[in-house]
Amino acid sequence: MKIGILGYGNLGKGIECAVKNSKDAELYAVFTRRSPETVTVMTEGVPVFSADDLLSKKECIDVLILCGGSATDLPEQTPEYAKHFNVVDSFDTHANIPMHFEQVNRAAKEGGHTALISCGWDPGMFSLNRLYANAILPCGEDYTFWGRGVSQGHSDAIRRVKGVKDAKQYTIPVEAALEAVRAGENPNLTTREKHLRECFVVAEEGADLAEIEHTIQTMPNYFADYDTVVHFISEEELKAEHSEIPHGGYVFRSGVTGWNLEHKHMIEYSLKLDSNPEFTGSVLLAYARAVNRLHKEGQNGCKTVFDVAPAYLSPLSEEEQRAHFL
Amino acid sequence: MKIGILGYGNLGKGIECAVKNSKDAELYAVFTRRSPETVTVMTEGVPVFSADDLLSKKECIDVLILCGGSATDLPEQTPEYAKHFNVVDSFDTHANIPMHFEQVNRAAKEGGHTALISCGWDPGMFSLNRLYANAILPCGEDYTFWGRGVSQGHSDAIRRVKGVKDAKQYTIPVEAALEAVRAGENPNLTTREKHLRECFVVAEEGADLAEIEHTIQTMPNYFADYDTVVHFISEEELKAEHSEIPHGGYVFRSGVTGWNLEHKHMIEYSLKLDSNPEFTGSVLLAYARAVNRLHKEGQNGCKTVFDVAPAYLSPLSEEEQRAHFL
Repeated sequence: MKIGILGYGNLGKGIECAVKNSKDAELYAVFTRRSPETVTVMTEGVPVFSADDLLSKKECIDVLILCGGSATDLPEQTPEYAKHFNVVDSFDTHANIPMHFEQVNRAAKEGGHTALISCGWDPGMFSLNRLYANAILPCGEDYTFWGRGVSQGHSDAIRRVKGVKDAKQYTIPVEAALEAVRAGENPNLTTREKHLRECFVVAEEGADLAEIEHTIQTMPNYFADYDTVVHFISEEELKAEHSEIPHGGYVFRSGVTGWNLEHKHMIEYSLKLDSNPEFTGSVLLAYARAVNRLHKEGQNGCKTVFDVAPAYLSPLSEEEQRAHFL
Repeated sequence: MKIGILGYGNLGKGIECAVKNSKDAELYAVFTRRSPETVTVMTEGVPVFSADDLLSKKECIDVLILCGGSATDLPEQTPEYAKHFNVVDSFDTHANIPMHFEQVNRAAKEGGHTALISCGWDPGMFSLNRLYANAILPCGEDYTFWGRGVSQGHSDAIRRVKGVKDAKQYTIPVEAALEAVRAGENPNLTTREKHLRECFVVAEEGADLAEIEHTIQTMPNYFADYDTVVHFISEEELKAEHSEIPHGGYVFRSGVTGWNLEHKHMIEYSLKLDSNPEFTGSVLLAYARAVNRLHKEGQNGCKTVFDVAPAYLSPLSEEEQRAHFL
C-alpha cells in the first residue's frame, strides 16, 4: 500500500512514523504547500513534492492522507482530492461533519474513490466506543473526559494574550468527577466539574503577570467556564518540560440491564498517549489500510469509522485474526 | 425484528431482558429442550415451544439466538439451525473456533442465511478491542485480565469435590499486575501473578474441611497454578451474598510509536458487570440486529464481530449516529 501525505506538520510526521513501523505500507511521497526544498522528511529516499504536483502522481498513490487543519484546509482539500484519490482525513469540527460528509461523499462517488473522514481518537476511537457501548446498553449515560493533554487551541489562545511570549495549556479531567462516574453514580457534571485547565506561560520581560493571569482566567469560551491555574515559567523550562504533545482521555458508558433495570454495568475505554500526533497518525494509517481494501472491493463514497468492519484494519488474514484476537 | 431464543437458562433470560429494553426488537418465542409446560418466561404473551417445533416457525423469526453451552450444544446446534435461520451464538471454546466457523459458514451459505458466532464480551467486545488496538499499535504487548467475577466452570469443579454441598468461585485480577501493566512496564506475568481465585464453599456436615481446601488448591488445570483462597460459609450466607453473577475484566494494549519507538501509549478497555448473562445477552441482541441487516443485504455465511461494521449494531440511522456519537 503506497501512502501519500499532504501536509508535513506534527500529524504528517506522526503518519510517517506509523508507516515506518508498519509492514504493509510504504511512503511514496510527502506533499507540501511550502517550498518543497525547505522540507526534509525523515524517511530516506522519499521525495517531497509541491502540493500543486499532486494530481500528476495519482497513479502512484493508493491512499492520500490529508494532514491539514479542520478550520480551513480540510473543508476544501478533502472534497477536492477525494475526486482523484482514496483519502483519509481527521476533520474534527463536530457541527460541520454532516456538510463535510455530504461534500466528500459526492466528490468520492464522482471520482470512483473511497474516502474516510473524521478519523483519529476523538473523533475516531472514542466515537466507536460511544457507538458500541450505546448499542449494547441502550439504557444509560455517556461520559467523555479529555486529558491529561495539551490543547493546541487553548495554547494558541494564551499566546495571543498581550505580554505572553509562549505558552502550553493542559486539559485535565477532574479526579473526583472520574471517580463518581466510575462508581456508577451517573452524576450531572458542569463544565467546571469535569475538567481543569493548567497553563504554563512564558511572559515577556516587564509584562504585568497579574493582568495576564486575569485575562486568561476570564477568557470567554476558552477558560471562563473552568478552574484555570496559571504558572509563569522561563522559556528554558517551557522547552525542557513542556515540548512533548501528550494527550488521552476516557469514554464511559454507565448503563443498566435486567427485567427491572436492576443490574449496573460500566464500560470504560481510556487512552494515555505520549504523543497525540503519532497516535492519531497510527489510527489514520490503520484506516488507510481499510480504505485501500474497500476501494478494491468497489465500495466507493464517503465513510466514517462506523462504516468500516474492524477486520479491514488489520494486516492479518481473517483466519489469523480469529486465531489471535477472537 | 423478531427474536427467537433457544435455551432458557441465565443467558436466555438475559436476552429476554435485553429485548424488553430495546425499541426495535420483539420476542417471538422461547424454545426449550425441556417440556415447554415446565418453563415460564417473563414476557407476557410470549409462548414457550419445544425445540422440536423450531423448524415449523422459521418464517416467524428474523434471528434465532442460541443460548446453549459451547461444550456440546453449540457445535451441533449452530450449524444445524444456520441452515434454516439467521443465528447468533456465544461459542467460546477458543481452540475449536476455526472448525466451528467452517461448519457454520457452510451451513449458513447452504441455507442462504447469516450467522454470527463467538459473540459476547470475551470472545466479543474484548476481541474487538484486541484487534483495533493491534491494528493501531503494531509494536506493543497485549494483556487481558478477567474479573472480579464468577467463573461457572470453576464453581462447578469445586462442587464435584467430595464433601462439598455448594460453591461459588471468583476470579480476581491481581492488583499489582494491573498496576504494572497500566504503568507501561510491559511485565512478563505468570498465571499466578495475573489472577487470584477466591472460593466460597458450603461443606456437607462432618466433612473434612482441610481435605476439601487441599483438594481445591491442588486441583490441576483449575486451581493448582493459582493462589487460591478458600472460605467455608453457611448455605444461607452463600445464598444471601453470592447468588449474583457479576463479571468483567480488562484489555490493555501497551504500545510504542515514533521514529525510534520513543513514545509510549496505553489503550485500556474495561468492563464491570453486575450481571454477566444480562450483559452478554445485550451484546448478542445488538449483533442480532446486525445479522438481520446483513441478511437483508444478502451478506450470507458465517461472520464474527470482526466482520461487522459498527453502524449495523445501532438502531439509529447513519445520520443520527454521526450526529450523536462521532
